[in-house]
Amino acid sequence: MIEINSVKNTKIKEIKKLLQKKYRHEENKYLIEGFHLVQEALQGNQAYDYLLATEKAYDRLLELANIDDRKVIIIKDVIAEHLSATKNSQEVFMVLNINQPKTFSFEYGKWVVLDNLTDPGNVGTIIRTADAAGFDGVVLSKESVDLYNPKVQRSMQGSQFHVQVIQMPILEALASFKANGFPIYVSVLDKSAKQLNNCAPVPQLALVIGNEAHGVSKEVVALADKKIYIPIKGQAESLNAAVAAGIMIYHFS
Amino acid sequence: MIEINSVKNTKIKEIKKLLQKKYRHEENKYLIEGFHLVQEALQGNQAYDYLLATEKAYDRLLELANIDDRKVIIIKDVIAEHLSATKNSQEVFMVLNINQPKTFSFEYGKWVVLDNLTDPGNVGTIIRTADAAGFDGVVLSKESVDLYNPKVQRSMQGSQFHVQVIQMPILEALASFKANGFPIYVSVLDKSAKQLNNCAPVPQLALVIGNEAHGVSKEVVALADKKIYIPIKGQAESLNAAVAAGIMIYHFS
Repeated sequence: MIEINSVKNTKIKEIKKLLQKKYRHEENKYLIEGFHLVQEALQGNQAYDYLLATEKAYDRLLELANIDDRKVIIIKDVIAEHLSATKNSQEVFMVLNINQPKTFSFEYGKWVVLDNLTDPGNVGTIIRTADAAGFDGVVLSKESVDLYNPKVQRSMQGSQFHVQVIQMPILEALASFKANGFPIYVSVLDKSAKQLNNCAPVPQLALVIGNEAHGVSKEVVALADKKIYIPIKGQAESLNAAVAAGIMIYHFS
Repeated sequence: MIEINSVKNTKIKEIKKLLQKKYRHEENKYLIEGFHLVQEALQGNQAYDYLLATEKAYDRLLELANIDDRKVIIIKDVIAEHLSATKNSQEVFMVLNINQPKTFSFEYGKWVVLDNLTDPGNVGTIIRTADAAGFDGVVLSKESVDLYNPKVQRSMQGSQFHVQVIQMPILEALASFKANGFPIYVSVLDKSAKQLNNCAPVPQLALVIGNEAHGVSKEVVALADKKIYIPIKGQAESLNAAVAAGIMIYHFS
């Protein structure tokens, strides 16, 4: 256990850099914050480098989980504020290893595939919904917001430790789904598509959700085995992406 | 049409105050921003005091709608930035009248009732979903975030002009629903409640969604004709409130 008192400390500077995508992927590490998330990471036996906590927070954390104190850094409040990505600073942080498979073969189950989603809150919320609905995992296209973005991590509320989440080129993922016999269901805003309510349950599928403003990209729509849509009955132009995804995910759960 | 160049102008100062709840309700006015919202307000024939726009934005707006130019204030970019509640300032604003009924009788249709929702994005998104699903309106409890909060207004994306949205004491609203024979469906996180999938469609209902952290309050649960829940099949502790509401709203739509 070590103690760091200054935001100018080299280690703190390095950790702070993990709030930027570029450094996360150079270092292959990322930062999470908050009791709930850190507790989930500990319980899920995630590989981590450091656990940072204020003295008070560390005492509280000890009641919740077993901690290897060689990895603990006790920090002052001012460092917690410095590292936090939220307005109301959290008091506990963890530096984790990014552990993405180089290749991945989709062999069974139900998956959500996110095509170029840009809002971190939407991405995190959809992953949380996929977890709640008992889906097996989520594929996030390379063009989407970075999976290790602090807002994405926060809105997942721990679901990143429950289901598989893989950020990879979407066409590679879809080729693997196709090769393994998964039907590709693509959500579109087109009334010529099949109404969600008329879609029968299936034992496995890849369910593609598109960009908040532009929907699913053309190359991906071209690969659809089935195009589906949620009917808009009122005057709203569309549904929020996370809400639309939630309705579809639960329909197929 | 008048032109204002300085953020120190008295009228601009007054308008800026409308970003605060206290002043909104003293003045009985509120502010919206952005082309889409202003266009919806114009098309919905909403009563308004002023339309503020940068010169460029005004030209664009003239192509979209008929505007009474006696109500137009042309503003400089610096004023637009000053008034904007978003990081990327919008160029068009409107000062509208708050027009809430003193009492309200619920006579027909399908309604969502929000019990102490605190997140403006959730509230706005749920109202948008209710609109998309063809519901008749939304009741927002007095303890919930203010309906005229800029973030609520923004995330509704115009649905405030399509469906009725009423902020009033929740027990009064529920008494009116009861008196008019609406069944009260209350969303709970309790497995002894009825699974959403097993709930038959109904011609009218009041569907109550609870606070993000604490759920529906006890007094409200006590009034339930039916308690319902969305099963959690994975390891997530719960669903995001707007997603859960979306799944329920579409189930009953």
